[in-house]
Amino acid sequence: MAGPVQSIERAAAILRLLAGGPRRLGLGEVAASLGLAKGTAHGILRTLQHVDFVEQDATTGKYQLGAALLHLGTSYLDVNELRSRSLNWADALAARSGEAVRLGTPLEGSVLIVHHVFRPDDTFQTLDVGALLPLHASSLGKVLLAFGTASVEPVRPPGLEAYTRHTLVDPDRLARALAEVRELGWAAEIQEMSMGEAGLSAPIRGHGGLVVGAIGLSGPVERICDSQGRPRPHLVSLIREAARAISRDLGAARW
Amino acid sequence: MAGPVQSIERAAAILRLLAGGPRRLGLGEVAASLGLAKGTAHGILRTLQHVDFVEQDATTGKYQLGAALLHLGTSYLDVNELRSRSLNWADALAARSGEAVRLGTPLEGSVLIVHHVFRPDDTFQTLDVGALLPLHASSLGKVLLAFGTASVEPVRPPGLEAYTRHTLVDPDRLARALAEVRELGWAAEIQEMSMGEAGLSAPIRGHGGLVVGAIGLSGPVERICDSQGRPRPHLVSLIREAARAISRDLGAARW
Repeated sequence: MAGPVQSIERAAAILRLLAGGPRRLGLGEVAASLGLAKGTAHGILRTLQHVDFVEQDATTGKYQLGAALLHLGTSYLDVNELRSRSLNWADALAARSGEAVRLGTPLEGSVLIVHHVFRPDDTFQTLDVGALLPLHASSLGKVLLAFGTASVEPVRPPGLEAYTRHTLVDPDRLARALAEVRELGWAAEIQEMSMGEAGLSAPIRGHGGLVVGAIGLSGPVERICDSQGRPRPHLVSLIREAARAISRDLGAARW
Repeated sequence: MAGPVQSIERAAAILRLLAGGPRRLGLGEVAASLGLAKGTAHGILRTLQHVDFVEQDATTGKYQLGAALLHLGTSYLDVNELRSRSLNWADALAARSGEAVRLGTPLEGSVLIVHHVFRPDDTFQTLDVGALLPLHASSLGKVLLAFGTASVEPVRPPGLEAYTRHTLVDPDRLARALAEVRELGWAAEIQEMSMGEAGLSAPIRGHGGLVVGAIGLSGPVERICDSQGRPRPHLVSLIREAARAISRDLGAARW
């Protein structure tokens, strides 16, 4: 069996590089970041430009992501079964809870948001679809970690990033929190990613019972938690019901 | 100077194939569609799977687009200057006109929608961002064709697709319509893509005056056109003002 195709792996690494950080990079920066010879990096970039995966700024000569990726990305959404099976349930969950609903799936050590229903009021909200959240500092991510659908890489210095003073950065504390998530069947994140914000999530299971994603509510901490700072039980119930309904649609056994 | 990297071109062709048509394909179908040996196609698919650009269904073994593309696609939106410079103007245009606003840029013989502001009412609307529209049957596309930003391939059998009986499928009639777009400075599409629907668009110019995209309104024909079936002049004025304002923000000279 043939091994992976090196030039495709390198092309993917260049695209990931352009999707992070400054997002407009010169040839020298791309080559240096990936440890490639300039000629090699140039050949890959020119090919990526030829297929519209990369664009080159006419003035600066710098490279950035190209238009073809947008069409591929939205086509992915159309084919994602977890998302298509969840659309109606997510709408219903937002309507019943009065809160914003997001659906997450693992991608490269993060949670990828594949669906987002705005909180049903007139406040200004921005679409999170396509965004990546940290596994250890989001309720969606904690669900994926707890049920083995995603994993944090062996913690090396500088370790887990502290977004607020509540973020679980100690591996032992995180492990205990994940054991509790498995025990309870749902996860909370309270001001661990952003002060004033909180989230609650439950696992979505696919055929065979494996956890394939997570669905959750998020919003201001005073809406998600009660006056004692504890997750509001009726919100937890609503999320768990939605997660069970989607799981059944995906072919999981009842539980 | 090195030529394009063949395996990357092939990988891009596989992704385009998965984004069109049935969207879930077996190895044999992929190989046959692109004229590749099965072993070659398999090596590319495995690599694409390894970088999360492709997913394989555990039950059927069929391939479909992968999650990494969604993050790359939305990252493209963040870096697209045409879009970021247009956001506020598009919101204002939707508010003033009472109609839906879309922003288009050329991609592979089509118009790629890079921004969409819903019509400001409570009707059910779906987000068109990432969708591809035909050049000859959309007002956004006619603008891109008229100003040389995009081109239709030399018309071969079966020729330009007829979406309705109003679609301009005759190359000479299309050429005359495009000459009129250049003359007027805006384009209309009236029931040429879908019966009952119409659109109006104007060109957005970048640095140096080149047309880099188009902005337009679209909606039910009775809202876009008057009782004689002609585009409503105040909508045309609003679109042209928005297009000029964005062009100035992008560095085009005043005109």
